Amino acid sequence: MVNSLAIGLGTKDKKLGWLEFFFVEPCSGIDDKFLNQLKKIITIPNQTLSLNDDKVIANLLAILDKTNDQHKKLIDFIAQATKKASYLSAKNRQLVAILLTDDVALSDVGVAYLKLHLLSYRHFKPNELNLTNIFSVLPNVAWSNKGPINPANVADELWKARFTDDALFIRSIDKFPRLTDYVIPANVRIANSARIRLGAYLGSGTTVMHEGFINFNAGTQGPNMVEGRISAGVWVDENSDLGGGASTMGRLSGGGDILISVGKNCLIGANAGLGIPLGDNCIIESGLYVTAGSKLKVLSKDGVIVSESVKASQLSGKDNLLIRRNSLNGQIECLTTLAPASLNAELHKNN
Amino acid sequence: MVNSLAIGLGTKDKKLGWLEFFFVEPCSGIDDKFLNQLKKIITIPNQTLSLNDDKVIANLLAILDKTNDQHKKLIDFIAQATKKASYLSAKNRQLVAILLTDDVALSDVGVAYLKLHLLSYRHFKPNELNLTNIFSVLPNVAWSNKGPINPANVADELWKARFTDDALFIRSIDKFPRLTDYVIPANVRIANSARIRLGAYLGSGTTVMHEGFINFNAGTQGPNMVEGRISAGVWVDENSDLGGGASTMGRLSGGGDILISVGKNCLIGANAGLGIPLGDNCIIESGLYVTAGSKLKVLSKDGVIVSESVKASQLSGKDNLLIRRNSLNGQIECLTTLAPASLNAELHKNN
Amino acid sequence: MVNSLAIGLGTKDKKLGWLEFFFVEPCSGIDDKFLNQLKKIITIPNQTLSLNDDKVIANLLAILDKTNDQHKKLIDFIAQATKKASYLSAKNRQLVAILLTDDVALSDVGVAYLKLHLLSYRHFKPNELNLTNIFSVLPNVAWSNKGPINPANVADELWKARFTDDALFIRSIDKFPRLTDYVIPANVRIANSARIRLGAYLGSGTTVMHEGFINFNAGTQGPNMVEGRISAGVWVDENSDLGGGASTMGRLSGGGDILISVGKNCLIGANAGLGIPLGDNCIIESGLYVTAGSKLKVLSKDGVIVSESVKASQLSGKDNLLIRRNSLNGQIECLTTLAPASLNAELHKNN
Repeated sequence: MVNSLAIGLGTKDKKLGWLEFFFVEPCSGIDDKFLNQLKKIITIPNQTLSLNDDKVIANLLAILDKTNDQHKKLIDFIAQATKKASYLSAKNRQLVAILLTDDVALSDVGVAYLKLHLLSYRHFKPNELNLTNIFSVLPNVAWSNKGPINPANVADELWKARFTDDALFIRSIDKFPRLTDYVIPANVRIANSARIRLGAYLGSGTTVMHEGFINFNAGTQGPNMVEGRISAGVWVDENSDLGGGASTMGRLSGGGDILISVGKNCLIGANAGLGIPLGDNCIIESGLYVTAGSKLKVLSKDGVIVSESVKASQLSGKDNLLIRRNSLNGQIECLTTLAPASLNAELHKNN
Repeated sequence: MVNSLAIGLGTKDKKLGWLEFFFVEPCSGIDDKFLNQLKKIITIPNQTLSLNDDKVIANLLAILDKTNDQHKKLIDFIAQATKKASYLSAKNRQLVAILLTDDVALSDVGVAYLKLHLLSYRHFKPNELNLTNIFSVLPNVAWSNKGPINPANVADELWKARFTDDALFIRSIDKFPRLTDYVIPANVRIANSARIRLGAYLGSGTTVMHEGFINFNAGTQGPNMVEGRISAGVWVDENSDLGGGASTMGRLSGGGDILISVGKNCLIGANAGLGIPLGDNCIIESGLYVTAGSKLKVLSKDGVIVSESVKASQLSGKDNLLIRRNSLNGQIECLTTLAPASLNAELHKNN
Repeated sequence: MVNSLAIGLGTKDKKLGWLEFFFVEPCSGIDDKFLNQLKKIITIPNQTLSLNDDKVIANLLAILDKTNDQHKKLIDFIAQATKKASYLSAKNRQLVAILLTDDVALSDVGVAYLKLHLLSYRHFKPNELNLTNIFSVLPNVAWSNKGPINPANVADELWKARFTDDALFIRSIDKFPRLTDYVIPANVRIANSARIRLGAYLGSGTTVMHEGFINFNAGTQGPNMVEGRISAGVWVDENSDLGGGASTMGRLSGGGDILISVGKNCLIGANAGLGIPLGDNCIIESGLYVTAGSKLKVLSKDGVIVSESVKASQLSGKDNLLIRRNSLNGQIECLTTLAPASLNAELHKNN
């Protein structure tokens, strides 16, 4: 059930339209009674509603419950926005609400931002929300130290700033903003906020080091140590460690149709790479890139040869694998704690 | 023809002299008539001229054409600088002009900055301008959130700032500033502006992801996806994709004399590396570093062995190559769509 | 002798207590006479002393020597703090002093910050100071463009900032701040300040490029080119070059008990990795990860086989090695300039 109520601020640009949306933590998992009340006020769900009608605001406030922590945040935010209405108007910022009831393909900038918030607020996990069309729906924005700007205007702004004390810096020009401009997940460490997009899911106890990266719709269960790159769609389960510079193949570019994931208690070595979904307790040696098409020699833990050549994709989701390149003959080997016979059966059960 | 007229602002430091130059988009490809007019006003070309003589400014404005878009930018910039003259003076910023007519080795900070601008404005491509001496000509600058500072002064500024609300942050201490502090190329995405130096050439349709990097005098034709590192001097042609963490060898450190490039429609896999110039439609497997000295087994597309051992440098510029490491025997293989005979002839034509 | 006197500012948070400490360059290597004077004023050494007693400040100033450059910095800093006392108080910033006499395990936030400063000021080299407990002693802090914030407060601050012109950006949420917010080492280049933690030691002549990274308690002798990652505890000696994306194994995660180091005049290739301490004049081929457990074929410079299989850990600290993967058979080879006989003796002397 995707039912969520979100209150936030949208920023408009004269030419581009909506540039971006900041939402206070949304109310998710709302019950039928409350949903029905909301539907009478927000009569068109699943799209951005500008809250510029005092009556609508009053009706909304009337059904929010001050004793509910989630509601309280929305009430406080609306109160502040009402107080600052003329300031917001001068800045092309607008109080907005979205009632999300259907998880369909995207066609509204506000809904796209809302879904990214829902992921980063840990209300939904990667791949649980429909993000179809997100690249076409989101506008490209110049993210500056003065806030979001239409990229077409930046060149002019840059030279104007040269005649003032207000230095203007562009942090990025991207369809996705940085996570920490919008959501601060509890109990995480983020060594460089430039490396995590809004829409990333950082579970409690996640540390993302300087070389770590997490794309939108991707993330970690926590606790985890992330010193490598978690591509869009990729999920890393608890207690797994992604070594420095490690790569996980995404589906957006080059990774094909397979959705990559890492199980619990895995170690992906530094500068290694992963092109298959891994089970639990797996290790990939530092510096080794395992693609789906890599052919591996499979050995039992006692060194008994189980198979001379198995495609890595056949090992998808298997637990207790140690994958390394034999440094004396260059062959990629997969050691497993399973006995040869049962392993052999495992490998062939999907054939 | 390097003929260009540039107008901009230079910042001076009491001890270091010129710290940096910001140029509005220069007029390039100027014709002989206009060039001759300019030479009478800017009597010493190819060096920085401080525009502090009202007569010179008036003469310059007199020959600029308000109906020409390029000229219009220069006119507007001069007007603003004139209006803000006392402010600029108080800030050690100076209106400057450069008439570039000879593309010789660098000896002037302003000309060095101008050439970097010309590359990033796409007026010239990487390796088309003479950048000899650039490291000795450019001063090392501390790039702060308050603008450029002489690095020798930063320690004092840091502790002074601790007694004020004006937090001081050093973004980098480098001879090259960030691209986006100076030039915003049209139709690009830049996920982290800290990763692209002024002097980078980003063709239209270029996306540089968080792990991407582009040095000065290097770049992309566009459209391109850049998730790897484009070293100084390296050029990537259209529709090619540099995977996450992919390395291209530069000539500045370790790469020797060979200038690396990537042809059209290539895919350099994640964590791969490239030490030879590639032709079109080539693929390098994720995780594989091909140096010029790597010896490859060459196979036709049908798997027929063409050569047991060819140095990668002999494959420079060849199209339609798929280079990968055989995971069963550790050997680097190069598959090609050419028939064995013609391929064999290709490989040996430079012997 | 760890004897150091440090004067600085600490920032307090109502709930977390001390958030961070900024120290002006400390006086290290102080002599017995001065130490005894100090002990009478700072009666409890090795912990943070809030300098809020005018008498203590006066006594301290009385024994500092204006003609001594090190002392002069402390005098100036105290003078400024005294002048700005009410401002600092309003900002929860406090003038502090630490007299460090014993290098014991950490239990005080101020002492932890002081030791990180001492490393970055090049007063001590990596692994020379006792940093035991540093992760438990240091609080996790949100480093914003407005200064340090308790991470628990950031979400509220973020939404408040949306109703003002003062954009709030979180640069990182980490126990360690950026080096350049505290210390600016002389004669270095740092292409991206986000990649170097306070506590890093950057020797004179060190250039850290965009892909370079230096953790706390790690660093370079200088001059060095750093385009790869220097993990905690790792030391790189002069004239060595860490290629783009190169990895050095740390002891914090996965690297085991071995302390990695790189000798003089070494070249670690791009995307390579190092799991053993290297001697001088060594080369590791681009893209090759040498772990301690890698088995190498050892050859003399003339290509004579010295050993068919030697564990990389046995080559620890040896000079003049060239380690590469034979691209025709996938085997890791180590070429050495030593004659086979003497090399053989070398390899076995630790057996």
